Amino acid sequence: MTDLLPFVADLPLVDHHCHGIVTKDVARADFEAMLTEADTTSPLGTSLFDSLIGLAVRERCAPVLDLPKHAPADVYLERRAELGAAEVARRFLRATGTTDFLLDGGFRPDSLTTTGEFAELAGTRAHDVVRLEQVAEDVIRGTTASGFAAAFTDELGKRAATAAGFKSIAAYRVGLELAGERPSRAEVEAAAGRWLAGGGTRLADEVLHRFLVFTGLDLGLPVQFHVGYGDSDVDLHRCDPLRLTALLRATRDRGVPILLLHNYPFHRNAAYLAQVFEHVFVDVGLATHNAGFRAPAILAELLEIAPFGKVLFSTDAFGLAELYHLGTGLFRQGLSDFVRAGLAAGAMSEVDAVRLCALVGHENAKRIYRLENG
Amino acid sequence: MTDLLPFVADLPLVDHHCHGIVTKDVARADFEAMLTEADTTSPLGTSLFDSLIGLAVRERCAPVLDLPKHAPADVYLERRAELGAAEVARRFLRATGTTDFLLDGGFRPDSLTTTGEFAELAGTRAHDVVRLEQVAEDVIRGTTASGFAAAFTDELGKRAATAAGFKSIAAYRVGLELAGERPSRAEVEAAAGRWLAGGGTRLADEVLHRFLVFTGLDLGLPVQFHVGYGDSDVDLHRCDPLRLTALLRATRDRGVPILLLHNYPFHRNAAYLAQVFEHVFVDVGLATHNAGFRAPAILAELLEIAPFGKVLFSTDAFGLAELYHLGTGLFRQGLSDFVRAGLAAGAMSEVDAVRLCALVGHENAKRIYRLENG
Amino acid sequence: MTDLLPFVADLPLVDHHCHGIVTKDVARADFEAMLTEADTTSPLGTSLFDSLIGLAVRERCAPVLDLPKHAPADVYLERRAELGAAEVARRFLRATGTTDFLLDGGFRPDSLTTTGEFAELAGTRAHDVVRLEQVAEDVIRGTTASGFAAAFTDELGKRAATAAGFKSIAAYRVGLELAGERPSRAEVEAAAGRWLAGGGTRLADEVLHRFLVFTGLDLGLPVQFHVGYGDSDVDLHRCDPLRLTALLRATRDRGVPILLLHNYPFHRNAAYLAQVFEHVFVDVGLATHNAGFRAPAILAELLEIAPFGKVLFSTDAFGLAELYHLGTGLFRQGLSDFVRAGLAAGAMSEVDAVRLCALVGHENAKRIYRLENG
Repeated sequence: MTDLLPFVADLPLVDHHCHGIVTKDVARADFEAMLTEADTTSPLGTSLFDSLIGLAVRERCAPVLDLPKHAPADVYLERRAELGAAEVARRFLRATGTTDFLLDGGFRPDSLTTTGEFAELAGTRAHDVVRLEQVAEDVIRGTTASGFAAAFTDELGKRAATAAGFKSIAAYRVGLELAGERPSRAEVEAAAGRWLAGGGTRLADEVLHRFLVFTGLDLGLPVQFHVGYGDSDVDLHRCDPLRLTALLRATRDRGVPILLLHNYPFHRNAAYLAQVFEHVFVDVGLATHNAGFRAPAILAELLEIAPFGKVLFSTDAFGLAELYHLGTGLFRQGLSDFVRAGLAAGAMSEVDAVRLCALVGHENAKRIYRLENG
Repeated sequence: MTDLLPFVADLPLVDHHCHGIVTKDVARADFEAMLTEADTTSPLGTSLFDSLIGLAVRERCAPVLDLPKHAPADVYLERRAELGAAEVARRFLRATGTTDFLLDGGFRPDSLTTTGEFAELAGTRAHDVVRLEQVAEDVIRGTTASGFAAAFTDELGKRAATAAGFKSIAAYRVGLELAGERPSRAEVEAAAGRWLAGGGTRLADEVLHRFLVFTGLDLGLPVQFHVGYGDSDVDLHRCDPLRLTALLRATRDRGVPILLLHNYPFHRNAAYLAQVFEHVFVDVGLATHNAGFRAPAILAELLEIAPFGKVLFSTDAFGLAELYHLGTGLFRQGLSDFVRAGLAAGAMSEVDAVRLCALVGHENAKRIYRLENG
Repeated sequence: MTDLLPFVADLPLVDHHCHGIVTKDVARADFEAMLTEADTTSPLGTSLFDSLIGLAVRERCAPVLDLPKHAPADVYLERRAELGAAEVARRFLRATGTTDFLLDGGFRPDSLTTTGEFAELAGTRAHDVVRLEQVAEDVIRGTTASGFAAAFTDELGKRAATAAGFKSIAAYRVGLELAGERPSRAEVEAAAGRWLAGGGTRLADEVLHRFLVFTGLDLGLPVQFHVGYGDSDVDLHRCDPLRLTALLRATRDRGVPILLLHNYPFHRNAAYLAQVFEHVFVDVGLATHNAGFRAPAILAELLEIAPFGKVLFSTDAFGLAELYHLGTGLFRQGLSDFVRAGLAAGAMSEVDAVRLCALVGHENAKRIYRLENG
């Protein structure tokens, strides 16, 4: 790890996948619970500050709160409380250099900022990404098995008017082995009937997740998929992006982008998909901040065979303001280290390096999500 | 990446798996289509020159065509057209330092050089690797379900007389989960019957792919398997080399080499198989040129647990003369970086380093394929 | 690779998973057969000294036997024979700096030292880890289908009195896809009946392996699982730790540690489990010595997302005294390189680095296995 190259330090970024922020003050136990994908600490282990992300908080976040690098965790959390959650959020979000945040507002919306509140804290643009399953779970309550498809399609169309994209969390519910065929009207009705018969609450049905995705693609907005790394609710062995192959093959001619989020530890598999399928895009969000000073190694693996026109930046930050700052700073570090290595090896010119960074940092996202320049 | 060690720069190489070369001039779209495993470019992405392999072409190939390093893609392609495909082929092939090319002539034979034409362009030896499925697809047209086994065995025996080895593309057709048992006469007949009933065109039947492999092993020539990374026709999740475990266990006592090609991103899994099964050999061709300056990182991962006596060199170059040059140059870079790191760490002596390079570069291939020295 | 940091060179270690040592002299063929996970050498390959572990023996072990670094294999083995197996064992074991060895005595006990003999050779403490399947295979001979559960539980309880933990080798017998539910009394009886009907020898039954694990957890001792890398008996594709997800989810509330051993090449998957499940701990033993000077790269990958409170040290050394020395030396090298990189990047303070090393080197093991300090 070395100093950032100037053109990486100043690179405007589009964070194409993140979440809202917790606005209340958090105690140490809550802070640790939000720091990684662990639900909580346990007496079997030690503090979650004993991790690369924990070290990264103390290294990279402490100075933003006017503390010396590597300040102890307790000192850090005391200072954080003293400044208050809103000031902490403003400091970290405004330090990112991000021009556009795309927010998935579908997870724990009650405890997090809205998109509007987030934009105000960050002092920049924020856009909505609509979680398909949340819309379906909203719609199912007021409809019937036979009415579900139309009701969902209608509601998603309305939401699309102000959204930058959609997101599927099929990975969390049924895994990623979705069939390639668009489900028929009869299949959707039957599945909705099963869902209603089971109470119509948490959606977990391969046919319906697939129907949601196809409906999203019909509307022409990019569709994001949670892939790989997540919390203990995920069955990670069912979340290898390669399991999506049939669906990707079936949808490649539609001209609508599909974005594979996170991907770690399957990021090389995701890079393969980004190379061979025209409409597939990838990132390594979430892993970037969790891996601390190892983040550059992960980004370099992603870039081995993924074309630079198919790689995006995201933090997947959730809840803690620190995570936006870390995800961004460690992504910049990774990008800078990568092109610095390429330059040192004579493998690229500086013009190439600048272009690569611009594509991955914001141009791909602006093109794919049709964001205006500003 | 550093300068090549002299004994790596001068190392004679056996490229144990590649394909013929396109002899006609190619326009930019065709060049990009052949550059990676993507079928084509798309307005969703950007140029495929925006990739590590694209950068590698401009870095490493431009000087061979008398251009400065990092010449722009258009300038490069203009110069390429000016020299003409034959001259370009001669320059790149002769710059490789390869003494023997083993060519799989079974994919798109109409558009590529024959083995003889290739040898002439390269000014060195070229050998045939016979694609098992191509022979089967030739034979099935003139036979019956009950006659297929004998007809195939007979024809393969003839082809074996002038071949260095065989190749299975089961990975592309049914995946690698082949059973360990040799299929019975009755099973082969039944499968051939199904195939004929379905038209007898593109073979995709687990029993028959397996029968082809066992027949190849009977003839005592090394059998190559496509594994891992390939184009969008492949279901990559069915191409993990570990899926071959049952077949490898069943064939280990035959004394006939099985060669796992490419393997990326499963190359560590392949290395494991090369360590524990006496007859298994591995390479990281295809990934080597696609990953550009990251190729050394991939080769280093392969060499973690694969014995040096079980690792081979291949480019898997296809069509574009640049790919032979890149695959070779980046392999040399990887090998040089690997032993340089080992030497710097005191982990090997220079005698060890030279031996390792000779084994991997040509000695293993000469021993396994019984190539004469020259 | 660089010089060891002083606090890593002097770090006391707990080797939480290894085996006994062969006390007789070994000829070259036997030495090579025990060096890696290959059963034997073959004329198809070359010497197994042609590998990173082979180089590591000549680099790191030769000086302990008073030879120069990189002494040829034959010279090395001659000197080894001259000193005799007992002296060789003493030298290597005492050079490790290990305070506590946890020995799985369940594999080939007839040819290896007992725990007591081992402790005497090493001049330090050694503890028993009881292999669950060995106890079951002992018990089944003297009981009935209906009596098996009680007889096993009773015998395991007796063994627990002097054991530090248990170990499951389900991976070798049925793979790791164990269900999450504790098997019912009736299921266990039925499975024991099938086992007895089949001769009651080598256990390989998903229900029974699972029953053994739950019985071990009931007794409150840590349960180790073989995961990933092993010899050719393993079906490695069934040994991805992610396949244990259901069982891990079902057992997380018991407060009893589960230790995933080896994990290579799935160590990043294992690290994920260690992050999200409170009771999951991981190591990269076995790979550490096999990968020679590449071991640090593997350890760094493990530490990306695994909390430092959840990572342990083991060698998985078996039979050859060299393997304890190599596993330990290469682990120290990896740990030193990792924190040196973190220090150089400013990603941790020296206090952090020392704490990280102490946790991974011995503190986690002492806490989990409740070893007394000494």
